Amino acid sequence: MSVKLDELADLIRDEKISELRAELLEMPVGEVVDFLERLGVQDRAVTFRLLTKDVAVEAFDMLDQALQSEIVDGLKDADVAHFFDSLEPDDRVRLMDEMPASVARKMMRQLSARERSLTNIVLGYPSGTIGRQMSPEFVAIPEHWTVEQAMEKIRRAGDDAETLYTLPVVDRQRLLEGVVSLRSLIAAPPEMPIAELVTEADSVDADHDAEDAARLCADRKHLAMPVTDKEHRVVGIFTVDDALDILERAESEDAARHGGAEPLHRPYLSTPVLRIMRSRIVWLFVLAVGATLTVQVLDVFEETLESKVVLSLFVPLLIGTGGNTGNQAATTVTRALALGDVSPRDALKVAWREVRVGLTMGSALGVLGFTFAGAIYGWDIGWTIGLTLIAICVLAASVGGLMPLLAKKIGADPAVFANPFISTFVDATGLIVYFMIARAVLGI
Amino acid sequence: MSVKLDELADLIRDEKISELRAELLEMPVGEVVDFLERLGVQDRAVTFRLLTKDVAVEAFDMLDQALQSEIVDGLKDADVAHFFDSLEPDDRVRLMDEMPASVARKMMRQLSARERSLTNIVLGYPSGTIGRQMSPEFVAIPEHWTVEQAMEKIRRAGDDAETLYTLPVVDRQRLLEGVVSLRSLIAAPPEMPIAELVTEADSVDADHDAEDAARLCADRKHLAMPVTDKEHRVVGIFTVDDALDILERAESEDAARHGGAEPLHRPYLSTPVLRIMRSRIVWLFVLAVGATLTVQVLDVFEETLESKVVLSLFVPLLIGTGGNTGNQAATTVTRALALGDVSPRDALKVAWREVRVGLTMGSALGVLGFTFAGAIYGWDIGWTIGLTLIAICVLAASVGGLMPLLAKKIGADPAVFANPFISTFVDATGLIVYFMIARAVLGI
Repeated sequence: MSVKLDELADLIRDEKISELRAELLEMPVGEVVDFLERLGVQDRAVTFRLLTKDVAVEAFDMLDQALQSEIVDGLKDADVAHFFDSLEPDDRVRLMDEMPASVARKMMRQLSARERSLTNIVLGYPSGTIGRQMSPEFVAIPEHWTVEQAMEKIRRAGDDAETLYTLPVVDRQRLLEGVVSLRSLIAAPPEMPIAELVTEADSVDADHDAEDAARLCADRKHLAMPVTDKEHRVVGIFTVDDALDILERAESEDAARHGGAEPLHRPYLSTPVLRIMRSRIVWLFVLAVGATLTVQVLDVFEETLESKVVLSLFVPLLIGTGGNTGNQAATTVTRALALGDVSPRDALKVAWREVRVGLTMGSALGVLGFTFAGAIYGWDIGWTIGLTLIAICVLAASVGGLMPLLAKKIGADPAVFANPFISTFVDATGLIVYFMIARAVLGI
Repeated sequence: MSVKLDELADLIRDEKISELRAELLEMPVGEVVDFLERLGVQDRAVTFRLLTKDVAVEAFDMLDQALQSEIVDGLKDADVAHFFDSLEPDDRVRLMDEMPASVARKMMRQLSARERSLTNIVLGYPSGTIGRQMSPEFVAIPEHWTVEQAMEKIRRAGDDAETLYTLPVVDRQRLLEGVVSLRSLIAAPPEMPIAELVTEADSVDADHDAEDAARLCADRKHLAMPVTDKEHRVVGIFTVDDALDILERAESEDAARHGGAEPLHRPYLSTPVLRIMRSRIVWLFVLAVGATLTVQVLDVFEETLESKVVLSLFVPLLIGTGGNTGNQAATTVTRALALGDVSPRDALKVAWREVRVGLTMGSALGVLGFTFAGAIYGWDIGWTIGLTLIAICVLAASVGGLMPLLAKKIGADPAVFANPFISTFVDATGLIVYFMIARAVLGI
């Protein structure tokens, strides 16, 4: 497929516009989106204008917000208004977050009154909450209706399928009573009262954290969940396709931060090099400044190093092992936190598990280290390396396991906080432990 | 919530069984599952037997396969048969993969004939394919039917909602023509022919990789996708809730392997310590053995180190920076691969981007390193550190960006292959570069 996309890119370069247009007509929308994601800003704008209206609207909807915002920049106002109106209110709000405030305000003025008021509902919730991601267009079924009345209302409703398969059931005060699935409505006799079909629903408060809500929706396998206000009145519905978007964004963030960088939030090949650099340089600096701690520690022990230069040979091996052990523990616990399997209250349990894991692994590595280092560089060096490996594994595993919990406790992102802190802390303390053990064993 | 779960655990410890039973009766199923996931094998078996039949079946369905398998071990044969029969065919096959083959065969014999034949369809596909994860129970609508006929068939169908909202439409040879959504059937007049409502469908071949198919389902926001055989006949349907499961499992694997460990595939707190240790020790050993390369490199340059001990102070800082830079690049590219934004064919583009990113970041860090190291340890050391930082950043970024592509090309997991290889390779080559530069600058 990628070969074909490269050929299409050649058509743009060679300005064979009519050939490109013909090719685009034949492609499924998904592939058009893949193609757009690989292009630079200029080429993307050119290609986008070649699409038929229908394909353009659908493709626009599937693009990342950052790319949508760039496309909007390159379009005439009338066209922009058209795309903007065709988006769902929650997608529209996310796009507005990417655009300059002045442009966003202009867009809002061009919307139809109904779309504007729906957008304002979503805009009323702080960013990061589920209220900001929900769909304010939903069909609520009064509990005292019959199946027939409900089906009639559904038939007349708009065309957004996800929001129609799980329907919030409300009482006369619009308070949430539960949900009814379209599937059960279809199977039931027309005269049956809705009250007999309603099932208990997991609902979320509109102020709730969006990622948590998405995880709940995915874990419990809901196609949609009602969103309520403080009084338990239904204010919107949150569908599994939005949950998928939120989770993918969250995974991308976790992955990037775990690798010591900020997420790009846009396709790699269409991201300018300077932007990639900016997403990494801050963390690289922070980590490098942290690493100067190791220079200072080694400086303190310079005399020990001078009298036994062989000790310096093992420095990368020892801090590398510490870093790896710490990373393993941090990754496991970060993931368990994300899935809701542990919470900061479990700190003692986690620490005790990780101390035992570290001790077991450290002992195994220590025996190996003792044997090989001892056989080649003498048994006193062997003892030093073996004992240091045990100590470093225990230290790194427990610090690595606890850091994500601490981060969560103080409200930081476990993936960001854990990694830099572990490498800096374990490197520096590991070196101190190493030289203390070396001095004791070697008698210097 | 966690406090409450701890209190419940205390009830088990104190053997207050009737109190525990009363508490369990009041809890939503989701919380019961959270609780079960935190318990040891024995306590989990005790608790599970206290649940009412309905809750037990629902909770069983939501547990990880590893825990399901342990629960089955502790139940009487008659009860097991009941749970086994209540599972969907695809979930059943995944559970069978976890159980000893002899137990699995016994289970199969106890199934009803219909369930057994459905299970056999799924078992016919190799593990890792979408055929193994699809639901073989689906409702296909012949193209020449009317809306009324279709609705009648749907009303009489089983109760699995996800498989009924997107319905495969087939011609007289059961070849896939497209899909029709339940939503459009409801809105259409009863006498309308299905052929007028059918829309083009993304379908997947049953032999297709399961993770790829799940990613496609999520990217394109499908509630369900038809699964076809080589002749394009419909053989099953793949729903978004199964896609979510597969993606979560894949993310857990990527996260674990990125941290240099194997995935646990079960909740952290209920995993025995020895099992956690086993998931990490192999990688830790591989990485430690790889790290002995650094000992050998330093051994080669021992004379240089002896004449200038100050060089050893910067070893952790330099290899740390190399490791971080490599990791940043590898993480970005691994994620882009997972999302389908790049492919191994883009290797040259990726390399050229990463060389530029590495050069920009290396130059910035290099100036800082030159200034500080120069001011404290003399300008010849400053030049050595500054130049080495530039070289290491370029080397690490390009190797880090290319490794995931190479891994993908040779069919390995990019997340596993990239990380260990980068740390070993960048550490060792980085040290060689360092000492070559040092010798040239310092004239030793």
